[in-house]
Formats: sequence, structure tokens, C-alpha cells
Amino acid sequence: MSKATRIAIAGLGTVGAGLVRILTDSADLLAARCGGPLTLTAVSARNRSRDRGIDLTGVRWEDDLTALATAPDVDIVVELVGGEDGPAYALVKTALENGKSVVTANKALLAHHGVELAQLAEENGAVLNFEAAVAGGIPIIKALREALVANRVTRVYGILNGTCNYILTEMEATGRGFADVLAEAQDKGYAEADPSFDVGGIDAAHKLALLASLAFGTAVDFDSVYIEGIERITAADILFARELGYRIKLLGLAEATPQGIEQRVHPAMVPLTAPIAHVDGVLNAVMVDGDRVGSLAFEGPGAGAGATASAVAADIADIAKGHSHPPFILPAASLRRSGSAPIADHEGMGYIRLQVRDEPGVLAALTKILAAKGVSIESMIQRGRAPGAAVTVVLTTHECKEGVLRLALDEIGALPSVLEPPNFIRIETF
Amino acid sequence: MSKATRIAIAGLGTVGAGLVRILTDSADLLAARCGGPLTLTAVSARNRSRDRGIDLTGVRWEDDLTALATAPDVDIVVELVGGEDGPAYALVKTALENGKSVVTANKALLAHHGVELAQLAEENGAVLNFEAAVAGGIPIIKALREALVANRVTRVYGILNGTCNYILTEMEATGRGFADVLAEAQDKGYAEADPSFDVGGIDAAHKLALLASLAFGTAVDFDSVYIEGIERITAADILFARELGYRIKLLGLAEATPQGIEQRVHPAMVPLTAPIAHVDGVLNAVMVDGDRVGSLAFEGPGAGAGATASAVAADIADIAKGHSHPPFILPAASLRRSGSAPIADHEGMGYIRLQVRDEPGVLAALTKILAAKGVSIESMIQRGRAPGAAVTVVLTTHECKEGVLRLALDEIGALPSVLEPPNFIRIETF
Repeated sequence: MSKATRIAIAGLGTVGAGLVRILTDSADLLAARCGGPLTLTAVSARNRSRDRGIDLTGVRWEDDLTALATAPDVDIVVELVGGEDGPAYALVKTALENGKSVVTANKALLAHHGVELAQLAEENGAVLNFEAAVAGGIPIIKALREALVANRVTRVYGILNGTCNYILTEMEATGRGFADVLAEAQDKGYAEADPSFDVGGIDAAHKLALLASLAFGTAVDFDSVYIEGIERITAADILFARELGYRIKLLGLAEATPQGIEQRVHPAMVPLTAPIAHVDGVLNAVMVDGDRVGSLAFEGPGAGAGATASAVAADIADIAKGHSHPPFILPAASLRRSGSAPIADHEGMGYIRLQVRDEPGVLAALTKILAAKGVSIESMIQRGRAPGAAVTVVLTTHECKEGVLRLALDEIGALPSVLEPPNFIRIETF
Repeated sequence: MSKATRIAIAGLGTVGAGLVRILTDSADLLAARCGGPLTLTAVSARNRSRDRGIDLTGVRWEDDLTALATAPDVDIVVELVGGEDGPAYALVKTALENGKSVVTANKALLAHHGVELAQLAEENGAVLNFEAAVAGGIPIIKALREALVANRVTRVYGILNGTCNYILTEMEATGRGFADVLAEAQDKGYAEADPSFDVGGIDAAHKLALLASLAFGTAVDFDSVYIEGIERITAADILFARELGYRIKLLGLAEATPQGIEQRVHPAMVPLTAPIAHVDGVLNAVMVDGDRVGSLAFEGPGAGAGATASAVAADIADIAKGHSHPPFILPAASLRRSGSAPIADHEGMGYIRLQVRDEPGVLAALTKILAAKGVSIESMIQRGRAPGAAVTVVLTTHECKEGVLRLALDEIGALPSVLEPPNFIRIETF
């Protein structure tokens, strides 16, 4: 039996407590599979007295997080504090500087400081693993970093935020509006008290930036991710989507294009015939296209104590077995910052919902503006008549350049008979 | 830059040639990602003069396979010869005995000799990797061996044979019969000239035995796999399945039950609402239930030069990076042969198709036999009338013990008005 691997956990929220339970309850299993015991040496969290339903007998409590990063009896520091800066950043940095390996679920931290921390890990002979940072229990980091090593990845995309997927699924199932379903999700603990990171698409964008780096061998480039959240999606959009043969999902997509790497997070209409249309509730899914392997799909729970702690434990086990990688596959020094493709250059189909005054010439004015920009209409729905009052008009367009369509939408929005800003949703056909 | 990892390939069929292309065309990519070059030193295959469209300049040709296993300039032997015994077995055994790591896509070899070869690998400090042996490009071995290390797996199942899935998909799409579609699949190269390993379920059973070993920490136990092929599936069964809300797929399922490990390969009706019902053509899919992570699904190409060679290359890269595992997660000596659950003890729903003479009392006789055995009928379809001639009756049953149902089917088959042996297909509800 090899010597023990000594672990410290910073942060004892849902995932941290889940990890303690795995290390305790499955100690024999893990020792047999890792060739030696995984021993929890020390923990640190904000509130010592809180009852977490876990047994910390014999585990040292540190009030100061950073003490974990310098403790001589710790081999691996598990960072479950969260936040892109502040204590999490200080902890990870200090741990790596002290030659300790780090396992983290912190996508915000890595999206902002990934390259710097990867460099630090390499310089100090430490490992920096982050399977739990993207898509919870789905082993997508391992797939990109190891299983697809012989592939040039051309595209990676998926449903990366369980909160948004839950909200959109519920909106469709119940016909209720965004605000109503969000409030319920908060009650159930599926959404945070401050939901803006989730529903605004930022959490998905953090994850996408990590996937894109691994997929394309580029430096993590969060600032180039185009981000739109799901706040603008209405019950009406969801009904029209269904009528047109689509469902609405918050997607993250990264693709190698001739203009550079395109990274975008936004709600999208996906065809009912696409498997990703049927990934519901808090599930996540990630699809990868590789030049050798073809298309792979991964689906599973994107969050939750068990799934996320399972991913953290796998990262720990890899380190215990002596397996190491550069965090982003390539040595940090050779991660180039690739040119990024602006969203205005993106070409795709679009859905446009308009509230217009029902009066002669409105449709002619709309279609003339689109035609003048070379935007070709695929379908149009206008239901009901209400002469002089407001009616809904829905258009879908054939593939066109987004920048051009945006100019047309600005002109359309300025028409006197158009009563609200047009609601535009991209249609993905994969 | 680390020193080169020196590779020998035995077998230059589709996958072998695909691997040579990866090692040649993606040499820089692989060297950067592996921390050193992967160098092809030697190859061996049956026919030296055949044009494979690959460049073997500077690569030594060995007429004798076994020479690869003893060559001083070879670190990793890639076995792509196939076959459970004979040259493949001799090659792998000799290579491991000489301390060389082995990468193989040979499920038959491992299903029959897995534990012995794992033992040999451990004794000689060698690695034995076999990602390509199961589900082609899907990294399911890595997922079970590494990503799910903290889980007790309760069930693993999937579509493991692309040939059968292609045939069943085509039968459904075209309404044609098994023999006809098989012949076409052979013409297209999707089925072997001798298709019995594929259509008889043996190939899927080899793969299932490997998955079960990794999932449950047991010794590979191919002999305990219950195996049925797809030869009995008719166009009528496929139509009735669709009418009942199912599709027919050849599944491999392994589950931990109180009676022991249940391993079975057979055609099954799966609900149209289950994602696995929509895995079509030559695609494979594997689903895993873990106690911590929940349910994960993996989908991708199960065969083909690119996908399989991609998996082989990933195994090579892991070895080049110095990553090693016991081949079946646990040290070979601690792999126990678990008790196996006999198929007669399996409880499930069933579909029964009968050809009966249309005469009074037939249905009464059938239902009486089922009732006497305690088998409860869920639905019955009888279409058309042909007094005195043959009509089709289809029954589905609620959950019952398979052994009991089999006894009932024997009695039903012996009724004078039942004209053909009953066709029984299991229904899986997951």
C-alpha cells in the first residue's frame, strides 16, 4: 500500500460536505482504486459551528484559509470557496506556490486567472485539476484533455447551466413567465438569491471559456465570450418556438472559424429533432466534434452535491495516482491568445418577434427593410386581427450575417407601427 | 522535450492504417500534448504488399508479429490483429512479459483472458489499455476507470454493436426483413462476411463483460453473460413495437442485483421517450448509473477508422505521459469472481408475438396459461379476422420473473392452435 495522500478542503458548502461524505464513507473503495488512502487532514470554512451532517473527528479546523496552503501535512488543497478573486484566488495561488496540487470547482477563478495559475502550477511541479468546474458530474474536462488528445476539435457546445435549463424547461411545461418560474427556482434552491450570474449567462460563459481553451489549445479568453442571458425569453417565444419545431435552450458554443475562435452564450432555438432539445431540467449536456473521432455527446447532472463532489474526488484520485497534465493540455507558455470572431460576423438563422399595430402597410415596411439588407425570410406567422391595435408578428430568417440583421432590426424597431423593441433569438441547426 | 515513446503496431487493417495516419499527420499536435514525440518504430501485418494509402518510410517491417513484442526499440505494442486466441494472444502475452505496455482494441481477447493479462501487466510493470475495445470513440473505459472512481456503479447499459443497430434502424426505416438488410449491410461494409459475432450478440457480450468488470470491480466473466442476437426480430415485431410506443435495440445491460451481477445482451423494446431509443445507425451509446454522480450518458461513433484510432491514440498518449492503472481499476489479485444472477431470475416486462389459428377459445387458452403462472397481461393486440386461418396476436406483460414466463411460453407454444413458437422480446423501462 502506497503512502496516504493528504487532503485539505476549503469551503464546506453543499459540494464540500458532499466531498467529506465521499472521503469518509467510500474510504476503502478509494484506497483500493488509488493504490493508497486519501486522508482528510484539514478543513476551513466561514462558519465552524454550522451543522453540516458530516463527521470531522480528527480533522484539523483552520480559521484561516491560507493556512491550508502552507500546511506541511497537506498534499492537495481542494478549493470550494468560489469567487473569481479574493480568498479563493489567494488560496489557490499560495497553494501552488508552495508546490501543493489544487483541485477546484471554481470556473470564475479559472476563466479570469486560468493561464496565470496554470503557469504557477507548472513552475512548482503541482497539478491543477478542475473537472467539477464545468458540467458537474460529466467528465468533459478529462475527455477533452485526455480522451480526445489525438483530435483537432472543431466545435464544442452544450447546455452548461442547470438553473437556466430548469427555468426554460419549467416555462415550457407550465406556460408561466420568466420571473414567476425564477422565483420558484429560488424557493427550491435551484437558483441563487442573486441569480444574475446564472440567468445572465455569465456562469455558462465561464465554463465555455474553459472548454474553448481545452478544445482549441488557446489561452482562456473569457473577455471574448459574447454573452446574452435568458431574461428576455417570454412564454410567447416558447410557444412560437414549439410551433416552428424548436425548443429554447441557453447554449454555450465555441467554434474554430476562419475569422478566429467564436465563443458565444445565448438562448437559442434548437430543432426538436436534435438530441440536445431533450436535455431537460437541471441536466447538462456537452457535444464535441473532433476531426478524428467525429461527434461525441455527454449528458448528466450539471450540479448537486453528489455529482460535483464525484468529479472533485476523481481529480483528487488522479493526483494520488501520480497522473499530471498541464492544466490546459499544452504548457501554459505555449497557449496562444487566438483571434476571436466577433458576433457581428456570425452567420445563422434568426427568429424575430414583433409587436406591431395592425394597420395597412406594416408587413410591407418590415419586409422591405429586410430585403434591402439582403435578409431572406424563411417563414412568417401573424395570428388574429385587431385593426388599429397590437398584434404579434413572428418571422424566421434564412442564414444571414448577424451584424446585417442587427442593422435591419434597428430600422424595424424605429418604425412608428412597431410598438416594442424586436425580440431576436438565434436559431441553431447544428 | 522528453524522450520519444516508441510504438509498434501489429495489424494494419482499417484501424491500424487510421492510427498510422494519426501518428504521421498529427505528430506535432501529439508531441506537444504528450510532452514528447510518439514515434512509430515497427509494424507487422499479414500482407506487406497491400496498398493501404499510408506512408511507412523509415518504419521497420516485421514479418513475425512476435518480433514486435521483444524488440528493444519498442515501448508500446499496439495489438490490432483481433481474435481471442492465436497470434493476438501470443503477441500481447509476450509483450507484457517483456515489460512492454500494450494498447489493444481486442474485446474478444480481453473478455476471455482479461484477468490473466492484467496480472501479467502488473507483474511486469507494464500498462494494458483498451479504450478502443468498447464503443469505439466513446471514452467509456476512461470514464469508468478514472472519472467515476468515487462511485459504486449500480448499472451500466447501452448500444454496443453498431452493426446490429444499423440493421435494426434500417429495418424500421424501410420495413424490410432481417436477412435482406443484413445482406445490404454486408455490401456496404457495415457487417462482416461472417456476421455471427455481431448479429448473434457475441461482440456486444465481449464488450459488456469488460464494462461490467470495470463497473463492479469483478473479474471479467464472459461465460456468465446471457446472449441473444437479433436474428429472430421480424419486420412485424418492429411495427408492433412502434405501435406500442417502443423501438427495438440490441442492448447490453449489466446490473448489481441482490442475486449477483446480472449481465445480458439481447434485443429489447425501449420506450420512445428514452434517449437511447433515438441512438440510430452505427452509433453507440453507454449509460452509467453511479451512487454519487447519478446517471451519465455517452454517445458517439462505435466503430470506424478515425474514431477507433482516436481511442487507441489516447491510450498511447496516457502511457507516454506516464499514467498507469491496474487494467480493471483494482489490482488483478483482488478482482473477485462475483456470483452471477441467472436470466431466469430476471424480472421485467415482456412482449409476446404469436401466430394462432383464428378459432374460438384460443385467447381463453392463452390467457388461462398466463394467469395460472401469475403473469399479468398489460395489453393485447389482435388485428383482423380470418376464421380458421392464421392471425397474429401480440401481448405485453407486466413485470414478471422470466423463468416463470418461459414455462408459460412453453405451454402456449404446445397448444394445437398456436402455429409457430412464440416470439418473446424483453421490454426495458429503465
